[in-house]
Amino acid sequence: MSKGLPKRSEDYSQWYNELVKKADLAENSPVRGCMVIKPYGFAIWEKMQATLDKMFKDTGHRNAYFPIFIPKSYLSKEADHVEGFAKECAVVTHYRLKQAADGGGVVVDPEARLEEELIVRPTSETVIWSTYKNWIQSYRDLPLKLNQWANVVRWEMRTRLFLRTAEFLWQEGHTAHETEEEARQETLLMLQVYTDFVQDHMALPVIQGVKTESERFAGAVDTYCMETLMQDGKALQAGTSHFLGQNFAKAFDVKFAARDGGLDYVWGTSWGVSTRLMGALIMAHSDDSGLVLPPKLAPIQVVIVPIFKNQEQLEAISVVASGLIRQLNELGISVEYDDRDTYKPGWKFAEYELKGVPVRIAIGPRDLENNTAEVARRDTSEKQIVKQQEIGAKVKHLLADIQDSIYRKALKYRDQHITDVDSYEAFKSVLETKGGFVRAHWDGTANTEQRIKEETKATIRCIPLDQRQEPGTCIYSGEPSQQRVIFAKAY
Amino acid sequence: MSKGLPKRSEDYSQWYNELVKKADLAENSPVRGCMVIKPYGFAIWEKMQATLDKMFKDTGHRNAYFPIFIPKSYLSKEADHVEGFAKECAVVTHYRLKQAADGGGVVVDPEARLEEELIVRPTSETVIWSTYKNWIQSYRDLPLKLNQWANVVRWEMRTRLFLRTAEFLWQEGHTAHETEEEARQETLLMLQVYTDFVQDHMALPVIQGVKTESERFAGAVDTYCMETLMQDGKALQAGTSHFLGQNFAKAFDVKFAARDGGLDYVWGTSWGVSTRLMGALIMAHSDDSGLVLPPKLAPIQVVIVPIFKNQEQLEAISVVASGLIRQLNELGISVEYDDRDTYKPGWKFAEYELKGVPVRIAIGPRDLENNTAEVARRDTSEKQIVKQQEIGAKVKHLLADIQDSIYRKALKYRDQHITDVDSYEAFKSVLETKGGFVRAHWDGTANTEQRIKEETKATIRCIPLDQRQEPGTCIYSGEPSQQRVIFAKAY
Repeated sequence: MSKGLPKRSEDYSQWYNELVKKADLAENSPVRGCMVIKPYGFAIWEKMQATLDKMFKDTGHRNAYFPIFIPKSYLSKEADHVEGFAKECAVVTHYRLKQAADGGGVVVDPEARLEEELIVRPTSETVIWSTYKNWIQSYRDLPLKLNQWANVVRWEMRTRLFLRTAEFLWQEGHTAHETEEEARQETLLMLQVYTDFVQDHMALPVIQGVKTESERFAGAVDTYCMETLMQDGKALQAGTSHFLGQNFAKAFDVKFAARDGGLDYVWGTSWGVSTRLMGALIMAHSDDSGLVLPPKLAPIQVVIVPIFKNQEQLEAISVVASGLIRQLNELGISVEYDDRDTYKPGWKFAEYELKGVPVRIAIGPRDLENNTAEVARRDTSEKQIVKQQEIGAKVKHLLADIQDSIYRKALKYRDQHITDVDSYEAFKSVLETKGGFVRAHWDGTANTEQRIKEETKATIRCIPLDQRQEPGTCIYSGEPSQQRVIFAKAY
Repeated sequence: MSKGLPKRSEDYSQWYNELVKKADLAENSPVRGCMVIKPYGFAIWEKMQATLDKMFKDTGHRNAYFPIFIPKSYLSKEADHVEGFAKECAVVTHYRLKQAADGGGVVVDPEARLEEELIVRPTSETVIWSTYKNWIQSYRDLPLKLNQWANVVRWEMRTRLFLRTAEFLWQEGHTAHETEEEARQETLLMLQVYTDFVQDHMALPVIQGVKTESERFAGAVDTYCMETLMQDGKALQAGTSHFLGQNFAKAFDVKFAARDGGLDYVWGTSWGVSTRLMGALIMAHSDDSGLVLPPKLAPIQVVIVPIFKNQEQLEAISVVASGLIRQLNELGISVEYDDRDTYKPGWKFAEYELKGVPVRIAIGPRDLENNTAEVARRDTSEKQIVKQQEIGAKVKHLLADIQDSIYRKALKYRDQHITDVDSYEAFKSVLETKGGFVRAHWDGTANTEQRIKEETKATIRCIPLDQRQEPGTCIYSGEPSQQRVIFAKAY
């Protein structure tokens, strides 16, 4: 059965939007720019959360929870920060409604105006550093390495499910350190934790780099990022890790008694990934038939579909299926058995393809006779007949192979879409025809960066970390340059 | 070392406030009525969450996420609902700040006024039922059994850490059913799930009951609850499960094609527990030395404290400790080894007492000679010397015994504080002297309920489910009554 998904080659954007809805991942809510994350989509996010949360704890972080509201005056305490966030925030001005005088519903009670407006957090540096001030007195209180899982709100004007929504879910780590060096190490450690997660679990290769000044987090000294490439040749920033220097410590007067007896400002970092990762996951691997999920993040890793003409056949197949489920569960593999008689097998096959279930097992009457089952992998659609007693080992191997295989496919695509150019003409031509990451020399000025962005819509994604110095000349200005940077059109 | 905690007998309220802060559970934030949940407090909440989440999934529920904002007009669609929540809500009226003309920080941009104000969700029935309208067409789409973990805001005027805060964390289940009977079963199922959690994990006995009309959730047909008793004789409502009838289906026009071909309104339930449970947990078992945590919810179940005079002794003890840690970890017991030399053993003992760690193991030089360790339980302070090779089995048994023992202690206290009274004089006297739950006859009118509340501050906590009919006369009005109800002063 066709699920009516547009083809990627015809309309990639529409394909994504439809896929998110038809695969039951998310939908727009009645509240402008806010999404509803549906159970199947949320189950994927829960797997991401659980994995990341363990990685954070394994690297010495603990969870906490800070208020959703930020007093307006707090935002202003760090000059760049307010500049970056004041333009798109939800402002709470009142704390009560009352019946309208005309009886037509409720209105804001003008008597209940807040003395100081509250901002729904767009990010929590300000409220957290105002708290750290009370928690940090001495070097003995450092490092302080906390994380919170929370919702945040940024009043985006143009929204897209998962990729850019007014409210989104995320985690935000906020750490405080004794020395600059330790804070810088933390920043890079978390960049690496994110990289490991995105590559090993989402099966998506990343380029690690540092942002230019104009793309930096508002209030950071340095913003490190991971850049991924989608199938339409556009880049997607998958996560960021910020070295905050002493900016927030100074804004909130957070000092500590140092080992040498002096009084120093604390060094800070912050880092976050969000439900935006869901967008990356969906776009990275999926095809015209639907989602392709990496087995490590698939809520259902294996679906078993019985093929039967009558109740007697179904019962015989169900006996076999329950044996297979036991085999698979013992290996820690999650299985769903879909024995509904309200849908035909063909419909079910299309449904689980759409939902990206990595492995499908079909059992029909002939399999009963032969003690076999048909095993199909979602990523390549390959099928094979497998002896029932070998299903566990076979599927376990297959899941590992799919995880590896979709990573290698994405890596190959990514590597084929990194192009070095040495002239502005070639730059524009690659962007228009091939897309992807374009490595080019840049003179290091915000002016050139801005002009290129205006003329081509490409931005500097990052100055890659893993790259040798290579003198050259800026493709735009002809001025000297020390190394290539990575440009792309981006989500 | 004294941690400077007030005694319960002197000032129970102050004891609670100080305990929450000194045990590093939570503190007030700079935002009025909102709390910061500190890492140790949050670790307990995470254990609660994980346990409940598994119980919800085991009973067929799935998680999803709905927007934090509710359009103002949605609140009004269910008449009782808006009545209950309009008076204490955070209202978002603008979506942008701008630089003040005088350069002094940022101000709300009057140009960025929302056409319709948004309410920060106090609970999500309205936004969820407006979504369910699109998800439910036929009986085949039912039941729909979803839960979300979220933050909610109710603008409480008098707040207390965990017990009553403007923002709190909770889960809210929202289910939709084909028949009244099925929805009623779900309501009671979730009441039982909560009961099992509170009794088996929090070690706190509950009374299950149904609320009177005046204490009912705004928009519910029936509100079921669990009532617990704190050590000061005041009741605390630990969770509620609501049978919503067709109220929200009618308010949001959610109909389904029934099996018989007709078109019916959907039947609903909702149910929730919140970080208020943390307040109950803290108050239920703790003593003048600090927290007493049930082992099932303790982030650290065992702490090992070395007692040493020099580095050589510490090293020898650390070898023994790592063996014990291995033994305990293999049994799934969480252990912390505190080998800091910046604090003395006495200080550490007091610290882990304050934090409610159920079992403390101390190892000193004499234990090295004898292959023993000193094992102390937090709840009774009993100590014993145990052979090192028996530590695992001993501690495992001890943790189970503590869990059981603090439940029995709370049960005994609770049962001793249920008093039957048959006159208003006796009623007032019990409330003033003994406190606790008072079982009395009530005439069933809101008027009597209100007067008793005004005169004594006691409210009807519930009409207990597990109680025989027993005709009598109302202690206040002398009118006839069919059964006793449970009164108490409450948090």
